[in-house]
Amino acid sequence: MADSKQEQKLRRLRLGMVGGGITGHIGAAHRIAAAMHGLYDLAAGAFSSDPAVCRASGEAFGLDPQRCYDDYEQMFAKEAQREDGIEAVAIVTPNDLHAGPAIAAAEAGVDVLCDKPLAESLARTIEVEQAVAKAGVVFVLTHNYSGYPLVRQARQMVAEGLLGELRQTRIEYLQDGALRPLPPPGPKTWKGRPERCGPAGCIADIGSHAYHMLRFVTGADAVSLSCATRSHSPSRVLDDHCETLLRHEGEALGSMTCAQVSVGKKCDLNFHVYGDKGSLHWGQEEPNEMLYCPYGEPKQVLQRGMPYLGPAATPRSNIAPGHTEGYYEAFAQLYVDGWELIRARREGREPPATAKLAPNARDGVAVARYIGASVESAAQDGAWVELASVAP
Amino acid sequence: MADSKQEQKLRRLRLGMVGGGITGHIGAAHRIAAAMHGLYDLAAGAFSSDPAVCRASGEAFGLDPQRCYDDYEQMFAKEAQREDGIEAVAIVTPNDLHAGPAIAAAEAGVDVLCDKPLAESLARTIEVEQAVAKAGVVFVLTHNYSGYPLVRQARQMVAEGLLGELRQTRIEYLQDGALRPLPPPGPKTWKGRPERCGPAGCIADIGSHAYHMLRFVTGADAVSLSCATRSHSPSRVLDDHCETLLRHEGEALGSMTCAQVSVGKKCDLNFHVYGDKGSLHWGQEEPNEMLYCPYGEPKQVLQRGMPYLGPAATPRSNIAPGHTEGYYEAFAQLYVDGWELIRARREGREPPATAKLAPNARDGVAVARYIGASVESAAQDGAWVELASVAP
Amino acid sequence: MADSKQEQKLRRLRLGMVGGGITGHIGAAHRIAAAMHGLYDLAAGAFSSDPAVCRASGEAFGLDPQRCYDDYEQMFAKEAQREDGIEAVAIVTPNDLHAGPAIAAAEAGVDVLCDKPLAESLARTIEVEQAVAKAGVVFVLTHNYSGYPLVRQARQMVAEGLLGELRQTRIEYLQDGALRPLPPPGPKTWKGRPERCGPAGCIADIGSHAYHMLRFVTGADAVSLSCATRSHSPSRVLDDHCETLLRHEGEALGSMTCAQVSVGKKCDLNFHVYGDKGSLHWGQEEPNEMLYCPYGEPKQVLQRGMPYLGPAATPRSNIAPGHTEGYYEAFAQLYVDGWELIRARREGREPPATAKLAPNARDGVAVARYIGASVESAAQDGAWVELASVAP
Amino acid sequence: MADSKQEQKLRRLRLGMVGGGITGHIGAAHRIAAAMHGLYDLAAGAFSSDPAVCRASGEAFGLDPQRCYDDYEQMFAKEAQREDGIEAVAIVTPNDLHAGPAIAAAEAGVDVLCDKPLAESLARTIEVEQAVAKAGVVFVLTHNYSGYPLVRQARQMVAEGLLGELRQTRIEYLQDGALRPLPPPGPKTWKGRPERCGPAGCIADIGSHAYHMLRFVTGADAVSLSCATRSHSPSRVLDDHCETLLRHEGEALGSMTCAQVSVGKKCDLNFHVYGDKGSLHWGQEEPNEMLYCPYGEPKQVLQRGMPYLGPAATPRSNIAPGHTEGYYEAFAQLYVDGWELIRARREGREPPATAKLAPNARDGVAVARYIGASVESAAQDGAWVELASVAP
Repeated sequence: MADSKQEQKLRRLRLGMVGGGITGHIGAAHRIAAAMHGLYDLAAGAFSSDPAVCRASGEAFGLDPQRCYDDYEQMFAKEAQREDGIEAVAIVTPNDLHAGPAIAAAEAGVDVLCDKPLAESLARTIEVEQAVAKAGVVFVLTHNYSGYPLVRQARQMVAEGLLGELRQTRIEYLQDGALRPLPPPGPKTWKGRPERCGPAGCIADIGSHAYHMLRFVTGADAVSLSCATRSHSPSRVLDDHCETLLRHEGEALGSMTCAQVSVGKKCDLNFHVYGDKGSLHWGQEEPNEMLYCPYGEPKQVLQRGMPYLGPAATPRSNIAPGHTEGYYEAFAQLYVDGWELIRARREGREPPATAKLAPNARDGVAVARYIGASVESAAQDGAWVELASVAP
Repeated sequence: MADSKQEQKLRRLRLGMVGGGITGHIGAAHRIAAAMHGLYDLAAGAFSSDPAVCRASGEAFGLDPQRCYDDYEQMFAKEAQREDGIEAVAIVTPNDLHAGPAIAAAEAGVDVLCDKPLAESLARTIEVEQAVAKAGVVFVLTHNYSGYPLVRQARQMVAEGLLGELRQTRIEYLQDGALRPLPPPGPKTWKGRPERCGPAGCIADIGSHAYHMLRFVTGADAVSLSCATRSHSPSRVLDDHCETLLRHEGEALGSMTCAQVSVGKKCDLNFHVYGDKGSLHWGQEEPNEMLYCPYGEPKQVLQRGMPYLGPAATPRSNIAPGHTEGYYEAFAQLYVDGWELIRARREGREPPATAKLAPNARDGVAVARYIGASVESAAQDGAWVELASVAP
Repeated sequence: MADSKQEQKLRRLRLGMVGGGITGHIGAAHRIAAAMHGLYDLAAGAFSSDPAVCRASGEAFGLDPQRCYDDYEQMFAKEAQREDGIEAVAIVTPNDLHAGPAIAAAEAGVDVLCDKPLAESLARTIEVEQAVAKAGVVFVLTHNYSGYPLVRQARQMVAEGLLGELRQTRIEYLQDGALRPLPPPGPKTWKGRPERCGPAGCIADIGSHAYHMLRFVTGADAVSLSCATRSHSPSRVLDDHCETLLRHEGEALGSMTCAQVSVGKKCDLNFHVYGDKGSLHWGQEEPNEMLYCPYGEPKQVLQRGMPYLGPAATPRSNIAPGHTEGYYEAFAQLYVDGWELIRARREGREPPATAKLAPNARDGVAVARYIGASVESAAQDGAWVELASVAP
Repeated sequence: MADSKQEQKLRRLRLGMVGGGITGHIGAAHRIAAAMHGLYDLAAGAFSSDPAVCRASGEAFGLDPQRCYDDYEQMFAKEAQREDGIEAVAIVTPNDLHAGPAIAAAEAGVDVLCDKPLAESLARTIEVEQAVAKAGVVFVLTHNYSGYPLVRQARQMVAEGLLGELRQTRIEYLQDGALRPLPPPGPKTWKGRPERCGPAGCIADIGSHAYHMLRFVTGADAVSLSCATRSHSPSRVLDDHCETLLRHEGEALGSMTCAQVSVGKKCDLNFHVYGDKGSLHWGQEEPNEMLYCPYGEPKQVLQRGMPYLGPAATPRSNIAPGHTEGYYEAFAQLYVDGWELIRARREGREPPATAKLAPNARDGVAVARYIGASVESAAQDGAWVELASVAP
């Protein structure tokens, strides 16, 4: 958001945080995203279940010690009594601890920015979605890759029919972190453990991102899927490699590979979407370019920030083309969107169209259906499972 | 083959051709491949079922009109009576017309270079394989992509264990030619028609190449597959898009996409092979480089022609690194291999190891099993089908 | 800087800003860079020569209106009297207005982060350098491209002798912005006008970055240069295209192209450095990878964030490899460096080695010599000019 | 050349060769190029100054021993007496031995295909050009990189004004072969030795290619140049690194680097050409794609073989797009051009326009002027030298 814009003159939002203490990881990404465009002030937090860590974190972040709380219940209660109480909350706890604070925030009328996947099960995800809908609060689910300008350009081009009728999809999210042995259990090593994550390993961890990306870009859920998984890593019981076939609406057919044993890949999330008139390819390791192939014509390299892109791809916060934007800038876009949505809600007006691109609780439910369908299909030797039919 | 080598001094092989008249397409590739290193002289042909085309072709190719034959039976019969009769034959007819001349050649003791896939059915493919085995002739099946030096390097690296235990495979062959309407039936438009091709469309046309590539590089057949297909193009009845999951020996899992509706793709055959120690990526649109990722170390760009490559990847026919080689050079490698195999057979000695890399009739049978399994799985809603169990 | 680190617990630095009001551009980059890791709090500013803009800016940035000053003299005077006065200042005015506030800051004992090039002339640059040296304050010159982790890796590899003896250099900075007509004169359109920029156009604007990059990576200044320039754009009188040959110490020879008429290029700053044992290539449009070619071995793709990189390339503020970092992250690195340098100065200890990589006032003098030599050589039909001999 | 074309029915040309014995290198490239499309039959040769090598070569190439001659004088004399005597000759001797057989061929009315650079000096080059002009024979100078289809597309696009007015050029030819010690003097190791090559090292060897490429694409000679050279390699006396600035007609300015000490580069010949409306980039290590940037629009990736290319870029000999063509195919294009030119000359008609793109003796003179100007400028500390003023 360019500082020169009028909206900048509106007051900055007071942000609380649940989880995200100094010993954690994803909290830092959220704080950077919130700080980047000067739209939020971190004002309070229940940063850790360990009170000492919570206090130390608050100190590191420059907070008033009075506003470092032992738990989120306390935070919402005390902050509600302050005139300068928090207006929004970032939830950055392990996945199975999202729903509690999310529902509490909704009930307290506090707007939410929540890490993904929304919750540990479809049932619990639906609970959050319903609480959010009932309270009418803003809920931004940080599927951060949907904040990349060119991903939004892709969505717009598909929606405008530039690719024609969808025929073929391919999406990958490849890493190689599961080649390392699983670390011993601990507060920060909950990933990969069924008691915390439920029955889905890389399906939930990175498959959730990949599937969200696919539905974000194509504008629709897949109809059904067939899935095969492996747990290659000797120390793991959950899947670290998942191969999926997808049937889309109409005749389109797709495939998806999510794996954390792909040597040499670090965060290779990329998609190809093919219609009968054109195709698009984008990858997050080189996110400032996207390949657009109109049938029979020269391939086009679309470059972030260029005037020929649509409004969804050229937010005011962009730096000039040629300079690269990356992970943090895309993440920050969701915080910009959230800020727009929150301001609009509080002022009783319609938010800008681009802000509505931010993933929300309904998207969380759709992703939870994908996770459930994948687990179910893999358990049934790859039987085709309809996403709409997955039981909570 | 460098001209300075002793083998160059041996006589050039006299080559006949079945199919490949001037009005055809793949024949030109075979002729260029045969001519490139000066190892063959085109000496006779049954170039077309149309005698006028056959004669015109012979004239264009500078042949003695006496050696332009109406059909292959006549050619093998007459040539056998000549002192300077053909020693080898290139078969470049439509797929369902390979087996006849191949068996006839084998029975005549003529060595064979035959276009792919070997025949129109598994049963017919096995017949050819048995005839070849019985006659003891050389049979090179021109899965031409296996002639690329870096593909051979990949095979060698996998075999030497540089990738460790196989975990994950991904292979694609993507084109967009099926977006054009199918031309009216005719002698040169047999592709895409079930009466000529059998039940497999792009599975046989390009899937055969992709599957052969995968087994060439990994050194083994897949165990079973699950397949879904589409015929997107309104004018086609055979598949033009095929998504396949593959189970390999051990725990490795893979996926494969072959499609002729992938807008913007022309001949994008590429593979990723991942073991637990390293991975390889190669694509035929930039065939002079291959990416090798040893776990935890910098990615390496292997470049064709460099001294650090193994013997399989550095044939004497290579030009210096930095200069590109392409489709014809890879194709010509199979003709070099064939020449080595034929010379060795005729001299009663073991051929060089690298020449044995050329695909043969047994490979043709393996590929036919893949085609059969794919058709069977697709017909059964993606049921897993074991390749070894496919009935001829 | 990972939040988990002890240093985070130290207090955040109070930052003032000269220039950078809401109607400006580069100020936003500095504010984002300062905010990203939570190490600075923007506390005061003389944001604009227009008092209304200054006040509006302060309001937008959430400042106490008392600390929005009409000019920098007032700011330094008033802030010095506060217990919570500014500790550091960011100078983001037009180039010819850097020296004034920089000298004033130095005299006030305030540490400085200053945009580039340091000043409008070599003489004025030397004045600043001397004032800074006399006062002993920290001075970070934001040649922001030197904040990229892989650029620092390159410097380290050259210094460690991995490339052997330097032979050949090539550096480019290519844009196409000068193809647009020069906008009418105004407070924000000072670029390209000799009355504000002196005699150097793109030489100073982007050539300064390119030359700094080259000396940063090679660890040494060039000895002499020969330069030819053009002003292609009809509306411009200053150079918008500059071709330069460079003689380095020893026998190394190099070339450099800086141009703002290179259609299709937006910010293509890239370098190749060749020694007799290896070479490096990096470009800022894909800054998360660098190509390293050891002689006779496979090319290596070095990836940002990987453990095999040296300490200079793996600051604690990095996100995991595979996620991209871009312009803002590199810029923020200089603010992290500055924070380290300032903390160390104020605590009377040696700063960490990596922080000393931040460009300083002496680098500003070296760059000013390059600018002067280029202008001089171009005026003399490309005569070779020694950098050390340029008169202030 | 597609076999279906009428021209194929015309008789094949009988080709002689001077140089190119089995112990040589570039001769093989010429033979492959001549053989590829079936347009030439190698019929005679003076392959070596060593009669034994000459005879062995003829045997390896399948020639009548009577037509293996001790020297070119004998060959032209004897062949002229045969009814089936050679119609064209390929000259593939060391550079200082081109002019003799070229002039003899011209006088014998034999058409010539000659390796580059044309001769060892400008004076000798002009002699050949005059002899060719007088005799009216075809003379194809194998600057083989001009045979790449996309290079011809580039030339056409520049000529049609798609780039607008020329502003900026950049061309490189980078190798690292000079890092190896110069081998001891011998018949095959004449490169790098002043007694054989004259005063120019890499300027003549690869700079000749680079400069020819630049004038081929831009359609005009440079006006003047300024050049600096080095002989880095301890065993060499001639330049192995050359940095050049170029002034073109109008205001365009360019630079050129030719080096054989660029670690990691094998044959990196690439150009960027910028006008005020668009730019083009092509490199011979990935020759099947070219980047076209129209100002303000998405970059376009032009792909070899696609129907949107112009006639110069889509010769009938092309294989389908997506399949790569490389060094030999580009080389073969010059032999196709030569065949067209020779046929047209012998039939007294105008050759096709595309055939006239083949470099000829006049191009050889222009390149010799570039070589001379470079040597002269380097000797004068980089003084600007006009190409037209270079004395023979």
